Amino acid sequence: MTIFSEATAVTSLGEGRYRAGLDEAFGFETRPGGPVVLNGGYLMAVLMRAAVAESSHAHPVSTAVNFLRPGLPGPAEVVVERRKDGRTASMLRASLVQNGEALLDALVTTGTLVPAAKPVYLGEAPAPMPAPEDCPTRGRERPKKGFPANVDMRFDPAVMGWLDGSPTGRPEMRAHVRLAGGDHPDPYVVALAIDSLIPVVTNAGFPGWSPTVELTWHLRTLPAPGWLTVHGTGRMVSEGWCDEDVEVWDAAGNLVAQSRQLARAARTRE
Amino acid sequence: MTIFSEATAVTSLGEGRYRAGLDEAFGFETRPGGPVVLNGGYLMAVLMRAAVAESSHAHPVSTAVNFLRPGLPGPAEVVVERRKDGRTASMLRASLVQNGEALLDALVTTGTLVPAAKPVYLGEAPAPMPAPEDCPTRGRERPKKGFPANVDMRFDPAVMGWLDGSPTGRPEMRAHVRLAGGDHPDPYVVALAIDSLIPVVTNAGFPGWSPTVELTWHLRTLPAPGWLTVHGTGRMVSEGWCDEDVEVWDAAGNLVAQSRQLARAARTRE
Repeated sequence: MTIFSEATAVTSLGEGRYRAGLDEAFGFETRPGGPVVLNGGYLMAVLMRAAVAESSHAHPVSTAVNFLRPGLPGPAEVVVERRKDGRTASMLRASLVQNGEALLDALVTTGTLVPAAKPVYLGEAPAPMPAPEDCPTRGRERPKKGFPANVDMRFDPAVMGWLDGSPTGRPEMRAHVRLAGGDHPDPYVVALAIDSLIPVVTNAGFPGWSPTVELTWHLRTLPAPGWLTVHGTGRMVSEGWCDEDVEVWDAAGNLVAQSRQLARAARTRE
Repeated sequence: MTIFSEATAVTSLGEGRYRAGLDEAFGFETRPGGPVVLNGGYLMAVLMRAAVAESSHAHPVSTAVNFLRPGLPGPAEVVVERRKDGRTASMLRASLVQNGEALLDALVTTGTLVPAAKPVYLGEAPAPMPAPEDCPTRGRERPKKGFPANVDMRFDPAVMGWLDGSPTGRPEMRAHVRLAGGDHPDPYVVALAIDSLIPVVTNAGFPGWSPTVELTWHLRTLPAPGWLTVHGTGRMVSEGWCDEDVEVWDAAGNLVAQSRQLARAARTRE
């Protein structure tokens, strides 16, 4: 049992209600010693565990989430409604609730994927990446606790010039991702990875916090053991809204997942 | 008042419930003289009218939908729950229900966009398209009623060789779209346009029906008068699941909307 699987575990309370304990192990301090805000992918993973437990299929093939409020460490509940049970897919609605307020509202579709599927690729291969050992971790000087301690991220050096005031000028961010000390990803680790990147608009000259408003992701194949590689791009910034697309590839070279999110961004470019 | 605005109109019944009348004008006969199944974008537009009516903002900036069951012409109801009212965005859940069964479950985020915004584009421009008058309508021999009579679509001839047994081999589909006799698109016409294309996998050798399971789309700018131009692409087919990305551009050259859907596809390539 990894720290992550413990931190995302849910316990059925019956009638579609699940108890969860949101864990600061997957959060960030908003300032040194200040309140901890939890990673959005972590919150999705907690919600998805309850939705899949309630479903007649094994895998979360589609998850669409509205992010209403930030999640804080402590007790929470997932409320799941079964909306359709099908032979190929089942559909559910789920909400992650804390202190009586919804943090996340989600639509989940589950299906049953098979290991070692043979996908037919129709688009371009992703940009090549240096190996994890040739990629820096972010923020060498940051305290190693919470998310940075529990999620091992190795950023492509080609997209990290923004740390020294030299963004690439394009909306892009890329990293290898795994749980610290663990390299057997499952769909919940993929949920964590898909929302783990620094905002792609950072490289396009829109610095600062970029809170996710809506994120939808599709699980396309089951991940092979090893690192996940996460490729982020974007299309447009307009009226303080930006989009971000992320693809997750596995160590066997398969496209595991695709996401798009709509987020808030700085209104003016630096 | 256009046929489309009449066919998508909703009437408040109070407490978040709205009455709708689903109109065969935006459906397809499943066989000549057979039952009519309604277009998914049309059903989204009906649901979105109720969600926006219930919201404190004017525009549906994000709509994520699970498609549970096909919609048939006749009475229906939209049930909307306000989940968060914010200064920048409001979030709602909405379901389109017919004969006591949910057809669509949705998460809607509304915001307030301004006309003539100045977006910053970060990706590539779309492929150039021939002018509408140089693009054929689909299916010259089909009876002109329902959707084909009420939605004027002009397909890029470069992607229509599949009609004569010569698909391009790539997942692509492109068309100019407008309401028949009308060229003043609004966000609801964009919802219709974004789900109007022939499946992109048709050109990649996966023929046949490709029912949408989940579709999320983001409204990025308000559309200018004139034709909408719809560009569809895809990434992968695996285990009978395919993805489809659609961008909608307007006559002023702005990216109006982006969507991705997860759909079912033929399991084997022709």
